[in-house]
Amino acid sequence: MNFKEWAALMADRTEHCLERVLPAGSVLPGRLHEGMRYAVLGGGKRVRPLLVYAAGECAGADPALLDGAACAVELIHAYSLVHDDLPCMDNDVLRRGKPTVHVAFGEANAMLVGDALQALAFRALVEPFRQAQPALAARVGPMVLALADAAGSTGMAGGQAIDLGAVGQVLDAASLQTMHEMKTGAMLRVSVRLGFLAGQASAPAAAGLESGMDAALDTFARQIGLAFQVVDDILDVEADSATLGKTAGKDQEQGKPTYVSMLGMAQAKELATRLHAQAHQSLAAFGAGADRLRQVADLIVLRKS
Amino acid sequence: MNFKEWAALMADRTEHCLERVLPAGSVLPGRLHEGMRYAVLGGGKRVRPLLVYAAGECAGADPALLDGAACAVELIHAYSLVHDDLPCMDNDVLRRGKPTVHVAFGEANAMLVGDALQALAFRALVEPFRQAQPALAARVGPMVLALADAAGSTGMAGGQAIDLGAVGQVLDAASLQTMHEMKTGAMLRVSVRLGFLAGQASAPAAAGLESGMDAALDTFARQIGLAFQVVDDILDVEADSATLGKTAGKDQEQGKPTYVSMLGMAQAKELATRLHAQAHQSLAAFGAGADRLRQVADLIVLRKS
Repeated sequence: MNFKEWAALMADRTEHCLERVLPAGSVLPGRLHEGMRYAVLGGGKRVRPLLVYAAGECAGADPALLDGAACAVELIHAYSLVHDDLPCMDNDVLRRGKPTVHVAFGEANAMLVGDALQALAFRALVEPFRQAQPALAARVGPMVLALADAAGSTGMAGGQAIDLGAVGQVLDAASLQTMHEMKTGAMLRVSVRLGFLAGQASAPAAAGLESGMDAALDTFARQIGLAFQVVDDILDVEADSATLGKTAGKDQEQGKPTYVSMLGMAQAKELATRLHAQAHQSLAAFGAGADRLRQVADLIVLRKS
Repeated sequence: MNFKEWAALMADRTEHCLERVLPAGSVLPGRLHEGMRYAVLGGGKRVRPLLVYAAGECAGADPALLDGAACAVELIHAYSLVHDDLPCMDNDVLRRGKPTVHVAFGEANAMLVGDALQALAFRALVEPFRQAQPALAARVGPMVLALADAAGSTGMAGGQAIDLGAVGQVLDAASLQTMHEMKTGAMLRVSVRLGFLAGQASAPAAAGLESGMDAALDTFARQIGLAFQVVDDILDVEADSATLGKTAGKDQEQGKPTYVSMLGMAQAKELATRLHAQAHQSLAAFGAGADRLRQVADLIVLRKS
């Protein structure tokens, strides 16, 4: 199966799992559940689930355990977009080519949609372990810890707080990198980590878990996390809103520091290329089992939206 | 130790655990962590942690595992107050006798404070299991599931969504009860349940886990959950803002349906008394081990603020 087919299959798989884990619009409170489904289903590049599945494949994970992690990272991502788009934050009206949740459902509902999606992420993550062998239970705690840290104040939410404080300011390169490592990087990184941990869960002593895989995958994940953001900043300038499915040029308009504003376009592109190469180098010790991860890295850096 | 001493000790214990689990204001991003600490520390009745410890005592739980659950329910509760107080929700300016988080830290930060507290709750819940015996790991999944369901769209967040939609409407008794069972009841109920599950975790086959304890504790928890809300509605009318530490008379002013507006004051008080008695009956099969739970029920119904 070529990468495009595999990615489409995994995106479909994620969509089906999300469809199952999200309560139906007929379940009380209907309006809230409709809002949650609107925020999550039928859109998005599903980059984080692809990372979960690709890392899981590399670590020999049971696909059933990966489904939970894939849903979890996508639900956290979706909630963060809903809250980020609110008037008190970025005040954005367009997302994935549709009106944002607060435009379609009202501000108060949008806040509750995000809140409920975060709780659902933790449900989705641990739910597959109900059916799994008791021996795998030891991995639940570390996976929950990893997701909570990536989503919380020292991860994604913390990065958003730094971002808030940075509007109109000139950040140095180190501060900008820290902000992005938390805001976007933490969730991309934990996607890889959850795939790895689910692999440990399936086969704690399997030969497939070559020594050093944990550290190597984490280095890889940091590099593509940063590359993801650099490319995002480039696209914010070069792509139009229709291609992006969200308002283009927003960062510049809001005076937010970006890699392009800090380095200039040419150097930002060089940085993306360099991180891309480094990410491949981080996987050099692994064989064909890491091919999907390599391909997801390519997708992240070479995407056009 | 009498109940007052025990409750003060458990509240202190909770405060210390929360103090430890909340990142310091010196940790980046400082403003966010200050906001989180402001929202959580040094206030509140800690009713939910008391229920965790009391139910845990009843089920023979290891206190170290109870600490995580006690923090978790309090962190979820605190986050819900921060979001509930926002201008797009209840727009309240006073909480626990202090300016609300969005008044003190701004709206965007308040939203992120709440978001980060929810993630932290899941971290706090599972963190003690890192030190625990591997055999106890089987309880982590069910505890995370229980907390996620209680906090999410079919629990607390769902109840808030129903509450939102109910402003200015006349709800029948059944709908009002459903709303409260979700909005307030779910988190009180899961507090008892987490205490029970932590007990199972410590001693899966212990004789202390008498048959039927799970169901009996859950019935008890539903009854005191409802009683809690009825008393809340009564206090909203009868107490003043200084005693409550929050704006009194708010429900009436906002046209929210309450037990008092629906039943009248005399019948609302009768209902509280009846639920109190029923809660005691639910624990009739248990001996002195359930005394703390009985006393927490008394506290919930007889409180003046």
